[in-house]
Amino acid sequence: MAGEIAETRPVWLWQQIAVFYPPRCRQRQTEVHADLLIHADWVIPVEPAGVLAHHSIAVEDGRITAIATRAEAERQISAREQVHLPGHALIPGLINAHTHSAMTLFRGLADDLPLMSWLSDHIWPAEARWVHEEFVADGSRLAMAEMIRSGTTCFNDMYFFPDVTGRVAGQAGMRATVGLIVIDFPSAWAADADQYFDKAIAVHDQFRNDPLVRTAFAPHAPYSVSDAPLRRVLTLANELDLPVHMHVHETIAEVRSSLEQSGHRPIERLRRLDMLTTGLMAVHMTQLETDEIVLFAESGAQVVHCPESNLKLASGHCPVTQLLDAGINVALGTDGAASNNDLDMFGEMRSAALQAKGLAGDACAVPAELALRMATLHGARALGIEAHTGSLAVGKSADIVAVDLAQPETQPLFHPVSQLVYAAGRGQVQHVWINGRHVLNKRALTTIDLAQVLQRAAAWRDKITESTV
Amino acid sequence: MAGEIAETRPVWLWQQIAVFYPPRCRQRQTEVHADLLIHADWVIPVEPAGVLAHHSIAVEDGRITAIATRAEAERQISAREQVHLPGHALIPGLINAHTHSAMTLFRGLADDLPLMSWLSDHIWPAEARWVHEEFVADGSRLAMAEMIRSGTTCFNDMYFFPDVTGRVAGQAGMRATVGLIVIDFPSAWAADADQYFDKAIAVHDQFRNDPLVRTAFAPHAPYSVSDAPLRRVLTLANELDLPVHMHVHETIAEVRSSLEQSGHRPIERLRRLDMLTTGLMAVHMTQLETDEIVLFAESGAQVVHCPESNLKLASGHCPVTQLLDAGINVALGTDGAASNNDLDMFGEMRSAALQAKGLAGDACAVPAELALRMATLHGARALGIEAHTGSLAVGKSADIVAVDLAQPETQPLFHPVSQLVYAAGRGQVQHVWINGRHVLNKRALTTIDLAQVLQRAAAWRDKITESTV
Repeated sequence: MAGEIAETRPVWLWQQIAVFYPPRCRQRQTEVHADLLIHADWVIPVEPAGVLAHHSIAVEDGRITAIATRAEAERQISAREQVHLPGHALIPGLINAHTHSAMTLFRGLADDLPLMSWLSDHIWPAEARWVHEEFVADGSRLAMAEMIRSGTTCFNDMYFFPDVTGRVAGQAGMRATVGLIVIDFPSAWAADADQYFDKAIAVHDQFRNDPLVRTAFAPHAPYSVSDAPLRRVLTLANELDLPVHMHVHETIAEVRSSLEQSGHRPIERLRRLDMLTTGLMAVHMTQLETDEIVLFAESGAQVVHCPESNLKLASGHCPVTQLLDAGINVALGTDGAASNNDLDMFGEMRSAALQAKGLAGDACAVPAELALRMATLHGARALGIEAHTGSLAVGKSADIVAVDLAQPETQPLFHPVSQLVYAAGRGQVQHVWINGRHVLNKRALTTIDLAQVLQRAAAWRDKITESTV
Repeated sequence: MAGEIAETRPVWLWQQIAVFYPPRCRQRQTEVHADLLIHADWVIPVEPAGVLAHHSIAVEDGRITAIATRAEAERQISAREQVHLPGHALIPGLINAHTHSAMTLFRGLADDLPLMSWLSDHIWPAEARWVHEEFVADGSRLAMAEMIRSGTTCFNDMYFFPDVTGRVAGQAGMRATVGLIVIDFPSAWAADADQYFDKAIAVHDQFRNDPLVRTAFAPHAPYSVSDAPLRRVLTLANELDLPVHMHVHETIAEVRSSLEQSGHRPIERLRRLDMLTTGLMAVHMTQLETDEIVLFAESGAQVVHCPESNLKLASGHCPVTQLLDAGINVALGTDGAASNNDLDMFGEMRSAALQAKGLAGDACAVPAELALRMATLHGARALGIEAHTGSLAVGKSADIVAVDLAQPETQPLFHPVSQLVYAAGRGQVQHVWINGRHVLNKRALTTIDLAQVLQRAAAWRDKITESTV
């Protein structure tokens, strides 16, 4: 039992480190330099699986340059900054593979309602009235404060004004993929199909060389985007080499209306449009039939599972175990805070593991290690950024989260990964680095003015409340 | 929308307060005295439903003596200590209606396993080796540290050495009902049936006049206690006027083995033994048939729902909505930290609400207000202590929890109860009073030496790990 957290032979040998350093650093192994050296009781790389006890991570120019035993690191690396974290585990930054960050300003506005009534009677009217640039900036920043404080370093967003969300992400130092939204109805963002596409291309251009912010096409859902714009999305996504982020099979009502309108279930319609490709991130995926799972597996398309949102809106169940067994890459997302009602990936990992066991009637379904993998590496894979993030590996960006496991809620400690998934809370996240930048330091945000964020949230609350009295 | 948190007419009129004061205090209304006056942005009494904005709670001799608007309280009550909590909500202390607190020392020892393999291959062998007085004291104290830090003021325990857990609860200032365990096999606590009963009666006597600690009979489960001791439990419970705390219908295997052994399903067996009474707290209650729900409703027996434990062990689903619709009192419990893996009633409220919606296919099932009620008043009712705790009401004990809702995770704030159930985390609990005693002050435990608790937990981890290498 103790073997799992005992001293493990480092997976990345010391020799490999030198590859990343210019020759002057290699003159003497004892003088390898790093910007930052983090020493922790446990390093959990996710890939490969397992736990490295008493290891250290070296970071230079925003990248991980070494993962070594503490003894080795102290002997061979001189760092400008050293951070000692006894009792902490280092994990890859969590990746929230589906959210609508600006909607955090609608958190708790309407609860305990089914999806269509929640959307039609509450969310869409509120959006029609309030969603403009300032709303999206304030809502996204509030979301990022919450995400960083809970160990999320990267998020996949779908909302109006993606340029604003992207800009705020850059300011906050967060990694993001912002969705180039396409939807059949007019909004404050775009008046018609042409404008949605013009703006999409402009936003894509804007972030083309951004070190943190990428773009994906984001046709809202099969029920809200007709065939012509979907074909245009596909053409442009191929041309620009962008992923496609879309709600698919969220509810039974969506499946029924698709059958009525097109004679096909939504997935069959997407197949006929040639949209089932490795670039598709299909979010929710409830109400699945076996042949649809096979079709997805064969296509190599990505699934994003949002267990808490699906439960809260009683939308149905995503058959996670079957999807994983079929070899499909399943990532995790919180969905927007208006339907979740938080952006806590620790809670989501736990919910995903528990719900999968309950649904499969199998306590072995989605064990802790797999839940953590879904919340990290699978997310990076879905977003097409696995080469840069999603695990702690030499050469990847330093997207690192330090979780304090020395608190009573995670003691005694037999298996660090079990504690992370089944017992740890978001409040145990003490430090977050994104691309090597220290964005959370002893729980203090370094890139976001929290007082201002809270003051803006309160002002929005007053405004929205007054209008609905 | 805003009406719910607007200034509400206080439910308890000022005149009522005087009833609780001796005549000298009544000479001038402006000089009513209290030990403690807590001012908060919201007071959520649970019973009656609703939210009182800008209200204060007065406490004297461990009891709530007034709930009034802040203006009224400041005008009419002079208090020795005043606590100002802007941005906070005051709620009744949460009641964990089923746990095995000492098992916190086995947290994460074995995960991702079904109930019987988890019990037979891991937990029972570990218990046989380790469970003694010192283990129970250390494990219970760790559990209480976690429970108080997450807003739980009262717990219903079932474990060996209930005298030790009761003693530790008294030291920690926690309200508890400790289970007088009865089980067919020998343990470190008792060698045979007679000894289990002798010790049960002795422990009951020990806590007979305790202000915080009560006792209940705790026959472990239908599959682990035979008819003769169950009859004896019933006789003694009636004689001593004690509730009966029992696992019932945890898994399908339990139902099958009962059918094989007795020819009856467990609930029918309990009915034949006359055990279905208002004093029965039946924990888990999965695999229920409609006539069993009717039988339970008619009997007035109590149900304790443990959603996370049932999911994690894939034990099955408790049909909460049907039970509530049938008029059954359903309380909430975490179960032990070895199967949950935490004792967080905030998480449990949320899981109960989400799981009920998913199971019923109805987003309106178990709304936030009901989840909070299940975690407070329903728990008190199940334990037979509704007159003393479970809601914020004049005359009840001051079991009060202050939750800081001004953090980004619960902003903006439209509906306090929604934020408490769907967005707040245990880390937002700032203050806890039990029986008027300030046991958590700005997140610092005042009755438990946390450093010592953690040191003991680490020592147990080393001991248990060494023995299983």
